[in-house]
Amino acid sequence: MSRPLVIDSVAALRAQIRDWRCDGLSVAMVPTMGALHDGHISLVRIALEKAERCVVSIFVNPTQFAPSEDLDKYPRQLARDLDRMAGAGAQLAFIPDVAEMYPAGFATRISVGGPAAGLESDFRPTFFDGVATVVAKLFLQTLPDCAVFGEKDYQQLCVVRQLCRDLDLPVEIIGAPTVRDAHGLAMSSRNAYLSEAELGVARQLNAVLHRTAAALAAGADESSATAEAGRALVKAGFDKVDYIAARESLALAPWRRNRDGRLLAAAWLGKTRLIDNVEVPSA
Amino acid sequence: MSRPLVIDSVAALRAQIRDWRCDGLSVAMVPTMGALHDGHISLVRIALEKAERCVVSIFVNPTQFAPSEDLDKYPRQLARDLDRMAGAGAQLAFIPDVAEMYPAGFATRISVGGPAAGLESDFRPTFFDGVATVVAKLFLQTLPDCAVFGEKDYQQLCVVRQLCRDLDLPVEIIGAPTVRDAHGLAMSSRNAYLSEAELGVARQLNAVLHRTAAALAAGADESSATAEAGRALVKAGFDKVDYIAARESLALAPWRRNRDGRLLAAAWLGKTRLIDNVEVPSA
Repeated sequence: MSRPLVIDSVAALRAQIRDWRCDGLSVAMVPTMGALHDGHISLVRIALEKAERCVVSIFVNPTQFAPSEDLDKYPRQLARDLDRMAGAGAQLAFIPDVAEMYPAGFATRISVGGPAAGLESDFRPTFFDGVATVVAKLFLQTLPDCAVFGEKDYQQLCVVRQLCRDLDLPVEIIGAPTVRDAHGLAMSSRNAYLSEAELGVARQLNAVLHRTAAALAAGADESSATAEAGRALVKAGFDKVDYIAARESLALAPWRRNRDGRLLAAAWLGKTRLIDNVEVPSA
Repeated sequence: MSRPLVIDSVAALRAQIRDWRCDGLSVAMVPTMGALHDGHISLVRIALEKAERCVVSIFVNPTQFAPSEDLDKYPRQLARDLDRMAGAGAQLAFIPDVAEMYPAGFATRISVGGPAAGLESDFRPTFFDGVATVVAKLFLQTLPDCAVFGEKDYQQLCVVRQLCRDLDLPVEIIGAPTVRDAHGLAMSSRNAYLSEAELGVARQLNAVLHRTAAALAAGADESSATAEAGRALVKAGFDKVDYIAARESLALAPWRRNRDGRLLAAAWLGKTRLIDNVEVPSA
């Protein structure tokens, strides 16, 4: 189990990638904000099935956090992250600081429409601009053959696909199934914020989503079913539900019963905001 | 004098570039909207001093025209353009149609701040979003080593440099001197709109700019000198002056006498809008 190379500058990253390219090696990328959990590790394993080298970036991107959000307390645990990357076989950890990513005078923003509209954007209006801009930068710094994103952040996955298609970014985007604990809770770095009692509540989110998706697939009325799901989450102990909504599974347009769908939700437990999503099979 | 390869799809473009890369050849790009004149040809010659292969793109980009502007009447003369490219030695003409560049569902926009603020943006508020987005796409389709842009569109050159720096686009941007006719008129595809009488007026633009830049360099007050230049243009026969302004020559921030500056102007002759710019030497 060898440690990954740790690189913090774009120039050194490009030099290493160039060396790999000269050796004919393919490269996959897994962009992360660190605090790596089993979900991230599954992305690395999928990356290494697709390519011979895996770059994991760790960058807590300030431009995707609103001033009121948890940028300052977002979990940072670099030594442990490097151990976990070594265990999974990732060869390179790219860990730029904010000045390397956004030098003085930085002034460019990428805005994606389509799947970025609604859902998260209704509550985090500048979030996907921040994600799209930093993902484009990471891709252009690395120029990987492919990149792996988790379905846990399902809308983000759709936005990144749209970004690459629209800007002709030559990177294949691979979506990876959400990794869950034994009780169905989706792995998330933000789960670290939860108390034991809150964990018990959080574990209801996936169950409610599954039950609602099954009801929709069986013909239930969409607005009644999602409203009922919202009430169930509050009853389970969630403090607030930002949204529960069914969408068409690719462009995230309004769901139609004869199309593959996705049921997506965001809800608050105290100061922690959790998201999750499940498939809605077509009728 | 061999004809350039004519390619209209991104897939075929990438295949040809890949072949060149396999042969170890470097690639330069000259993005144009066609209607090639001596200014464009000088860009191709500079490109071929920098790289072994030159891709000239011809795409009249609808997203950088406002509804009121001249998209429909913009000059199109493909056969003549290919002859001129052959004469200059360009090996590939990339001529995508609108559906190839903006397929159904296209939904992404790149906005550049910094040098894009003011000047052209005060009169064409969505222009540089359109330019930045299409240039990023052309670069990502082609992945050239370098690209050559004329200083005639000086603000655009600064915006493209900012775009590449901010998004880590791995393309070196080369600015090329403006090509002028014997009377100092900057070559422009839009000169084709001008009558003989209007051409006589248009040729005053560069003279007024040079005179004003010399006055600024000699210590003249900035606002008096540019106001005087505006009056001189109207007296010469221009119908309206959008702006005449001195800026710092890289970031296009307000000009300071001890920094290299640029004096930029846009003015109307009938329905034709002309732009030009000259250096303001530092004191």
